[in-house]
Formats: sequence, structure tokens, C-alpha cells
Amino acid sequence: MYEGPIQDLIDELSRLPGIGPKSAQRLAFHLVKAPPEEAKRLAEAILAAKERISFCVECGNVAEGERCRICRDPGRDPTVLCVVEEPKDAATIEKAGVIKGRYHVLGGAISPLDGIGPEDLRVQELLERVERDHVAEVIIATNPNLEGNATAMYVAGLLKPLGVRVTRLASGLPVGGDLEYADEVTLSQALEGRREM
Amino acid sequence: MYEGPIQDLIDELSRLPGIGPKSAQRLAFHLVKAPPEEAKRLAEAILAAKERISFCVECGNVAEGERCRICRDPGRDPTVLCVVEEPKDAATIEKAGVIKGRYHVLGGAISPLDGIGPEDLRVQELLERVERDHVAEVIIATNPNLEGNATAMYVAGLLKPLGVRVTRLASGLPVGGDLEYADEVTLSQALEGRREM
Repeated sequence: MYEGPIQDLIDELSRLPGIGPKSAQRLAFHLVKAPPEEAKRLAEAILAAKERISFCVECGNVAEGERCRICRDPGRDPTVLCVVEEPKDAATIEKAGVIKGRYHVLGGAISPLDGIGPEDLRVQELLERVERDHVAEVIIATNPNLEGNATAMYVAGLLKPLGVRVTRLASGLPVGGDLEYADEVTLSQALEGRREM
Repeated sequence: MYEGPIQDLIDELSRLPGIGPKSAQRLAFHLVKAPPEEAKRLAEAILAAKERISFCVECGNVAEGERCRICRDPGRDPTVLCVVEEPKDAATIEKAGVIKGRYHVLGGAISPLDGIGPEDLRVQELLERVERDHVAEVIIATNPNLEGNATAMYVAGLLKPLGVRVTRLASGLPVGGDLEYADEVTLSQALEGRREM
């Protein structure tokens, strides 16, 4: 369709998740028109991230070097672990600043339909970490959906025999949301988890 | 928020049109997780496109080298020019295979609100080309919106005194669409442009 190099760029951009052929075309033309520094900076950022970012040997989060920033921070309580599916989930929680402990990234959720079983997740590493660091509480923050809940149940079942406190983030009405738009399952969870005033 | 290189990558991706912070984050994590070859291919495609693609000295379309593929093709009628706003518009029309002539890319449309006047477009080049190549017909295919129409009127006004036939792509009902969903302006254009059966 296009001259070689621009078609190659469109093809490569189309491979990215959520980028269809039209978006890829728009992005490619933007890059061709953009100042050379901008395109160069993007290409270099991709290569730098790829070269310098790996996964933390402790928690599985993205890390520059062997351990991530949070696992390197001596001020973070090692006896509280927040278990999440993906690095981006840890980032979302970290942004809220509600966890004083550390994270453990499973690398996904149990999903038989996608062929992901417990052995594909960093569950063994979690159990070893809990024993080694004398973890007092594991807060499970997998997604509040079918796969996330199944994963939470599975992980909790393995953790409880170790004598550690296992909790799960509450489900309920989003703060600032409209009750009117709440679905039935969320409402029933909100009722179940109701608190004394 | 994140370790340096991944934050840099998210920042660079966020600069792209239509990519918000959440999409940038998703793309960055995808690239970090992806096989190294994939990320490398994307970075190299960006650099290659930037290095090897410029704009055709004849028509203003994207080109590898001095002239684009279409301007280099001796089989394309040089006396019919299709005027478009952007290279991607030429590509869309080219995909339909309806133009046997060549293209002329203006590089945008007249839009006083965005500070784009006729002097920012490749209008002078169009006039020179029409005279030099003894162009018989100029088909104006700017976008069927306010800016595209204003640009079409302006360009047509300059071309007509040169004795060249100036036409504009028809507005009307999209083929395969539902009459029910047609807006009033499109309907009135469809009526105005109605054809004998």
C-alpha cells in the first residue's frame, strides 16, 4: 500500500495491543511528520526500557536492576504483602499510597480458557517469600472478576495453612459513583460487606 | 511513578496522538513483556521511516526518495490531479483504485481557528504543476467538512482562471448505509446531487 518503510512502521505499530490498522496509520504519519528528535526519543525509549527493565527477583514487578524500587526500600514493611496480577496493578495501588508493605506480582490470573493455570503464576515464589520473611498479612488485590476471584481463592487456600492472615480488597460501590448505575453483583457485595456506622 | 526507563517510555508514548496515559502504560508494559525482537523491530521501523521517508517534491505525498511511487509511475496520467489534504487521504483513495491520474497533497486544510491559512498549504505548487503539466482536470477530494469545503472553494477559485476543469467528490449517502441514520446536511446534499435513472 505505502512506500516500504512507512508500511513497515504501520505493520509494527498494528501489532501493539489496542492499536488497529487505522490508529497505526495515524501514528505512523504523525511520526513521519514529527520533529526527528521526537521520533528518535521514542525509538530510544523503547530500546532503553527493553534493555534496562527486567522483572524484580523478589516480587516480579518491573525493575531497573535485580530488585525493584519498592523491594530495595528498607522503609517498606516486608511483613505485609499485597498480591496483584500485573505490574500495572501494583502501580495503581502505589499511586493511591495505601500500602505500607511490599507487593507480589503473580504475572496474571488463573484462566483455564486462556490456558493459564496456577503453575504459570508466581505462586511458589509467594509461598517461599511468606515463610522466609515471616509475613504477617497477605492482602490479595487481584481483579474483582471471575479469574481474579478464582486466583484469590486458590492463593488464599495455600496461604492459610502457613498461619498468615489473608485478606482481600473489599468489593462495593465506587466512591463518587451513582448508586443508580451499580450492577446487582456489586450491590450484593456492598450489602454483604456493610459496616457499622 | 515507575522505574526511570519505563516511565520515560510511558511519557514518550503519551505524546502520540490518541494515546492517553492509560494506553501508554498498557503499551509500555506490553513492550517490556514482549520478545526483544518485537520491541527492537518497532524501534528500528520508527528510525527507518524517519530516515528514509520524506515528502515527494512533486505531490507532497510521503516518498522514499525524491519522488513518490505514484509520481514515478509513467503509467499514471499526469493530466488528472486529485487534490487531498493529507497523505493518508491519498492512500484511502488509492486503495479504492478509482483515480488513474496523480495526487497533490496540500498538507492540511484552511482553518483560521488553528491558524492555518492558504499560505501554509501547497497551493502555489499545485498551480505551477497544473500549468507545467497541462493538467486537464483537478478533482478536489478535501474532507467534506467546514475546513475541507472552504479549502476546496479557495483552490477552485484559483484554478478556474487557468482554464482547467475543476470537480469535487460528490457528497451523499454512503453506500451500504441506512437512510434512517443519514444527517440532514448529507440528505440535502444527496438530493441536490441526485442523478437520472
